[in-house]
Amino acid sequence: MTARSSAGRRPAAARRAKTSSRTAPKVGVWLFGARGGLATTVLTGARAAARGLVEPIGLLTESPACAGLGLTPLDRLVFGGHEVRQGCSADAAREIHEANGTIPYPLLKALAKDYAAFDREVQQGTVANSGATIRRVTGAEEEKTTLRGQVDRLADDLRAFQQRNRLDRLVCVNLTSTEPKLKQTRTHRSLAAFDKALDADRRSAVRPSTLYAYAAASVGAHFIHFTPSDATLIPAVRELFEQHGAAYMGCDGKTGETLVKSALAPMFRYRNLRVLSWQGYNILGDRDGAVLADTDNKASKVESKDRLLQSILGYPLHSHVGIDYVPSLDDLKTAWDFIHFQGFLGFKMSMQFTWQGADAILAAPLVLDMVRFAELAARRGESGPMKHLACFFKSPLDVAEHDLHAQWHTLTDYLRRAAPSA
Amino acid sequence: MTARSSAGRRPAAARRAKTSSRTAPKVGVWLFGARGGLATTVLTGARAAARGLVEPIGLLTESPACAGLGLTPLDRLVFGGHEVRQGCSADAAREIHEANGTIPYPLLKALAKDYAAFDREVQQGTVANSGATIRRVTGAEEEKTTLRGQVDRLADDLRAFQQRNRLDRLVCVNLTSTEPKLKQTRTHRSLAAFDKALDADRRSAVRPSTLYAYAAASVGAHFIHFTPSDATLIPAVRELFEQHGAAYMGCDGKTGETLVKSALAPMFRYRNLRVLSWQGYNILGDRDGAVLADTDNKASKVESKDRLLQSILGYPLHSHVGIDYVPSLDDLKTAWDFIHFQGFLGFKMSMQFTWQGADAILAAPLVLDMVRFAELAARRGESGPMKHLACFFKSPLDVAEHDLHAQWHTLTDYLRRAAPSA
Amino acid sequence: MTARSSAGRRPAAARRAKTSSRTAPKVGVWLFGARGGLATTVLTGARAAARGLVEPIGLLTESPACAGLGLTPLDRLVFGGHEVRQGCSADAAREIHEANGTIPYPLLKALAKDYAAFDREVQQGTVANSGATIRRVTGAEEEKTTLRGQVDRLADDLRAFQQRNRLDRLVCVNLTSTEPKLKQTRTHRSLAAFDKALDADRRSAVRPSTLYAYAAASVGAHFIHFTPSDATLIPAVRELFEQHGAAYMGCDGKTGETLVKSALAPMFRYRNLRVLSWQGYNILGDRDGAVLADTDNKASKVESKDRLLQSILGYPLHSHVGIDYVPSLDDLKTAWDFIHFQGFLGFKMSMQFTWQGADAILAAPLVLDMVRFAELAARRGESGPMKHLACFFKSPLDVAEHDLHAQWHTLTDYLRRAAPSA
Amino acid sequence: MTARSSAGRRPAAARRAKTSSRTAPKVGVWLFGARGGLATTVLTGARAAARGLVEPIGLLTESPACAGLGLTPLDRLVFGGHEVRQGCSADAAREIHEANGTIPYPLLKALAKDYAAFDREVQQGTVANSGATIRRVTGAEEEKTTLRGQVDRLADDLRAFQQRNRLDRLVCVNLTSTEPKLKQTRTHRSLAAFDKALDADRRSAVRPSTLYAYAAASVGAHFIHFTPSDATLIPAVRELFEQHGAAYMGCDGKTGETLVKSALAPMFRYRNLRVLSWQGYNILGDRDGAVLADTDNKASKVESKDRLLQSILGYPLHSHVGIDYVPSLDDLKTAWDFIHFQGFLGFKMSMQFTWQGADAILAAPLVLDMVRFAELAARRGESGPMKHLACFFKSPLDVAEHDLHAQWHTLTDYLRRAAPSA
Repeated sequence: MTARSSAGRRPAAARRAKTSSRTAPKVGVWLFGARGGLATTVLTGARAAARGLVEPIGLLTESPACAGLGLTPLDRLVFGGHEVRQGCSADAAREIHEANGTIPYPLLKALAKDYAAFDREVQQGTVANSGATIRRVTGAEEEKTTLRGQVDRLADDLRAFQQRNRLDRLVCVNLTSTEPKLKQTRTHRSLAAFDKALDADRRSAVRPSTLYAYAAASVGAHFIHFTPSDATLIPAVRELFEQHGAAYMGCDGKTGETLVKSALAPMFRYRNLRVLSWQGYNILGDRDGAVLADTDNKASKVESKDRLLQSILGYPLHSHVGIDYVPSLDDLKTAWDFIHFQGFLGFKMSMQFTWQGADAILAAPLVLDMVRFAELAARRGESGPMKHLACFFKSPLDVAEHDLHAQWHTLTDYLRRAAPSA
Repeated sequence: MTARSSAGRRPAAARRAKTSSRTAPKVGVWLFGARGGLATTVLTGARAAARGLVEPIGLLTESPACAGLGLTPLDRLVFGGHEVRQGCSADAAREIHEANGTIPYPLLKALAKDYAAFDREVQQGTVANSGATIRRVTGAEEEKTTLRGQVDRLADDLRAFQQRNRLDRLVCVNLTSTEPKLKQTRTHRSLAAFDKALDADRRSAVRPSTLYAYAAASVGAHFIHFTPSDATLIPAVRELFEQHGAAYMGCDGKTGETLVKSALAPMFRYRNLRVLSWQGYNILGDRDGAVLADTDNKASKVESKDRLLQSILGYPLHSHVGIDYVPSLDDLKTAWDFIHFQGFLGFKMSMQFTWQGADAILAAPLVLDMVRFAELAARRGESGPMKHLACFFKSPLDVAEHDLHAQWHTLTDYLRRAAPSA
Repeated sequence: MTARSSAGRRPAAARRAKTSSRTAPKVGVWLFGARGGLATTVLTGARAAARGLVEPIGLLTESPACAGLGLTPLDRLVFGGHEVRQGCSADAAREIHEANGTIPYPLLKALAKDYAAFDREVQQGTVANSGATIRRVTGAEEEKTTLRGQVDRLADDLRAFQQRNRLDRLVCVNLTSTEPKLKQTRTHRSLAAFDKALDADRRSAVRPSTLYAYAAASVGAHFIHFTPSDATLIPAVRELFEQHGAAYMGCDGKTGETLVKSALAPMFRYRNLRVLSWQGYNILGDRDGAVLADTDNKASKVESKDRLLQSILGYPLHSHVGIDYVPSLDDLKTAWDFIHFQGFLGFKMSMQFTWQGADAILAAPLVLDMVRFAELAARRGESGPMKHLACFFKSPLDVAEHDLHAQWHTLTDYLRRAAPSA
Repeated sequence: MTARSSAGRRPAAARRAKTSSRTAPKVGVWLFGARGGLATTVLTGARAAARGLVEPIGLLTESPACAGLGLTPLDRLVFGGHEVRQGCSADAAREIHEANGTIPYPLLKALAKDYAAFDREVQQGTVANSGATIRRVTGAEEEKTTLRGQVDRLADDLRAFQQRNRLDRLVCVNLTSTEPKLKQTRTHRSLAAFDKALDADRRSAVRPSTLYAYAAASVGAHFIHFTPSDATLIPAVRELFEQHGAAYMGCDGKTGETLVKSALAPMFRYRNLRVLSWQGYNILGDRDGAVLADTDNKASKVESKDRLLQSILGYPLHSHVGIDYVPSLDDLKTAWDFIHFQGFLGFKMSMQFTWQGADAILAAPLVLDMVRFAELAARRGESGPMKHLACFFKSPLDVAEHDLHAQWHTLTDYLRRAAPSA
């Protein structure tokens, strides 16, 4: 069940960003995939909340758990990005309004200037070796420039954005469509080897997100990898981030069915109930769904979703994660999970749940939360994988723990340490 | 979805109780409501597992989390109880088999001697001021003996059981039907005042479970209050338990819908998603359901179930807990919960779940787990409310925390401290 | 799952009303409860379809099943009504847009003139003996005028509407909130007796809808009773309709859970599967929900919903219909039904369904369909209850058949007879 | 939700087969796939009902709809069959009891003689060109005998069964596992061509069920094709049935999700609601599930299930039928369907249902019903496809109508005609 938001109806009720002091540092937020549904929702929500037009629901960083951390005020975030499709953000927002109703109509008008300002900061992206499906869906063509030429150009875009806006820090976020898996070889395991591949223009060694991440790393930006693509944070690129002392984290935002799974599975362990089968079916219909309908691209996604049950429960079990494209749903993702379990005397019982959520609405605040947490990490001089953000990811980098509650305790412990000693 | 257990089919596969040494202490388990569905399932499972006929699924105390604690082996538990209905345990078990299939047919035969032995330890209970519904459902009549005479007789039964079986310790468990709420007054607030009421034979001051708990306390037994009845662990009775240095805990085993609720609600808090409404509907059909169909008895139950959401989420919300009697379901309790929540941009989304579980199958292992934990507490010289067992209860005594995961961490911390320093 | 409609996005795709000839008769549609959610949706949809702004989805009368019947074109319907609340229709539509998104934003503007025109035809209604809940929710006060004075005034309003707009026919529709049950006596059984009660100003003998229906009958209008209120089509009022040769039908539009029930229950009969229990839970949150939260008003509704299972299945069974008020849902009604049934070898199985629909969206086209069918009946010289419309009602007047499919065959047989012999 | 049946508990309550006169004709029922779960359930139920041990729930032929037709009494049915797996029926029944509980324990004993009698009538079947999956699951090996030799032997088995038991009529039923699709060519289109292929021992031209059906046809038996295999009722075989004046029908018993679909889809048409997407997911775990896990075998099944929506609704729509193997479910098939539809003003809404049924329990009575209806057809001198049985099949032979209610009316019209004029 979903419904039109009440945004715009009672702007007076919305809580204004409290600490929008002009003296707080300005943070650049660079979105790879800048006019996709998620990026557009991120931008819309950030600007609407900054202007006091909506309440900051869904943002952990606006909840009591994050009080006193001195996080960047929303109105000190400046947005830009790379995009391969044509168009403008206001149209992208209008399209979302019409398809899902997730962006309320009044915001389309109220944010007209914000959309236009953002468009001025959107640069041409890359589809280098992105696979046929992504090229077809985006309508973009692979460019002739060498790979090295492309990363240099992408990096220049980032630097120019930073200078033009006098940004104190820069956080890049990968929001591009899920890519086909990349065959990883020795080339990807060290920066030196990978640099050679770039120089040799070996296109099969990269996906678009590899180039984006490389460019971000090369300018010292921090990085959030929000999709399951395995080509993004390859060891070579991580090496480059670490050379620059940058913090990063991934992969694949945990928003819907997997979030519920990781919240629910521990319950069965607490009671020593034996999960026999856990079948999950996801149906969704937006551009992301169309890309996932391609079997190659789906492989990345399914693997990322199916890993956690055995990890939480501690034993192998029959499980399945299905993803099907249902165009009429647009972004209103629906998941049905069936859990078959055995209790005392071997008796079999079951639980099932249906989750009906708008994907971008669930994901967008996580992006903003993590941008702010990345800035906090940077301010605290931390670099490398931000493991304390594991609770936001389906496949948290370098973290074996998938239990949402254990992950949450890790985050709250971190935030307690990060809070001023007062 | 439920199914016949595989018990009896592959006894060879069942893990035998490991530490059944004859030298371990013998622990008496006294069940108030000794031939109800839950007590019969407790007995069946304990004996079947002790004999290696079933795997100990559902018992936390048989999982890795409890390794090394030296808990009482299942074959060192000796069972007895009070009951107000006529009949024998083998028939009660057969009735369960036919109604639900939760007790597999082969166990009915394999445990014939165990049922008979138990019947020899079952004594006549009490229905003092139990209310019309319970009397009708049980077919029992209120006896003329004074209240004081009754508690003395009940306590004598406990002492005789203990001596006859040379028990090292005694744990009593209240499994009687949910009683109508008791109007609590000054009388119940101190042992002295309550003793006067008993002596004055003021029947309106007690329910059956008050007398059971008083009798248990007066012989120094430990006590688990597994139902929501508010007349059981009144302050006066708790005073008596504490006088005898006994450990106790309650109220109302957390087995089905409430268990899921307390596992799931924290997830919404972690994401700062605003829960607008949480509607829960429970349907069930066994004797317990028939008792709950009575509005007075239902009041105790619903209140106990509806408390926790606000506590976990931290704000008031629209919530509802319905319980309806559906005879055809017998013990196969079904619950449907609908959760309406608001995310980023004020967008409304929903989740729903259906839980289909056999109530006694879910509850029985909790009873056995807590008997063993009570013995552990006693061995460690602890008395008073066993707050570390909060995760097993809908309304944990003296515990404000309802978040299942926080409760679980409290328990595992306790178990870590209780493990031998090795 | 619900979503913003695509209306206004692709007006070009919308099928224009085909037969909007200026020569077709003009039919007046008078809505009692003229600014409620349902009436506002009826008006919005009729005007938007007449203007070619939306496709006529949901209207049976626009489907192949009704081709060739010469039904009144949508643009020949003229709307007016009685209402007790203050306000204007454009605001009512905006409120619906904001709460549910069922009326798309672009229509609010495109229909501005239609809303204003309608407002000019809305007259003050009555709350005579409507009960405290309806008065509180509507904010209306009971007027002092005698009952006779009130019906005369209401009838005058209808006549004036008809003359002002040179209408060929008039169909009145009761869309007012469900009223508390009316105690029916000899007074209601004949027109003569009821007229005496009106003259004696016996307010306890009427509800608002009694006066509305009486007024409609007294001017020879046809009548659709779309709510479950039992005070509307009392025998006395039916006598008056029949005196005037008018056609009428009721009660209680079959839109959601009951519709599904009546479609599904026959399946169990076809297979000789024995339905043991059918539990239904409805949650909804609009003004109608608030009125139903009152136990008196709910009684009318539940009785109307629970009648049909035994009728379809042919044997008594355990069934339950719950209705609960969940404000956050607004008009997005959600129902969960659990069906427990027994098959071969006595084995028990189950089916459950969740229905998530916007009540007014489901009901509005039925109102328009029946207005057109009433005009067809009038044109064919039929009077009295339109039994062939049984498939549209939870409690079809003078019809014992509740099986949706049997009702559908009755309707299609009628339409076949009504089609020109060509 | 499923539960142990109450069979055996109250045999007194069971209705005895009424017309078990010794003078009624004896009808042979020959089951291809004689020890599969479905055949075993058919046998168990028929014998248990004949002995008055269970009520004949699920049998349409025991409901009022079939009163007065003089159908063959259950105790006049004599069972035999072909099977490729080793074992005995009593063990097959015990296995079902243990896996699903669908066959109650007491029947295992009460029917011991019936199982033994049946085993004496079970002959060795064939796996000619059955595909690797079926051979692996059944453990059977392809025999060397020529195809012509095999059909002759199978036919001899049928004749011997008929003579040995002095049967008045013989009805054969195909209950074998779903086979991989057969590539159909000119060879299959006429009996003459197909006979040549048999004589040439062209194994690729047949599946086991082709041989079974050919053998049945060649002895003049009537035939029910209960599975989706397309190799069974090829034109050549139908020609042979018709030469012998035999009645037959298929394909693929309509028992679960598809049954519900065909009952529910018409409702959307009645309301002119536009179904945008209908996604169905089936999970099941028995031998049939294991066979279907093979993609080739699944193809037959899915095609058969997915055909009917467009036929009922009258327009193309997005639909999907998934089948996944979940071993822990055994025969307790679970299906989840999600229906996304559009109503008035283009608003999108949804319905979902979960069906939890034991496949063999749902299918077995259909087999018995159709055996009796085949005998009725034979008695009435009818031959060829029994189109009036369309309501029992997912893909009814030579019938375009998939609407369950329309199919039901066809059946009841037929039965009305078949009833003695009295």
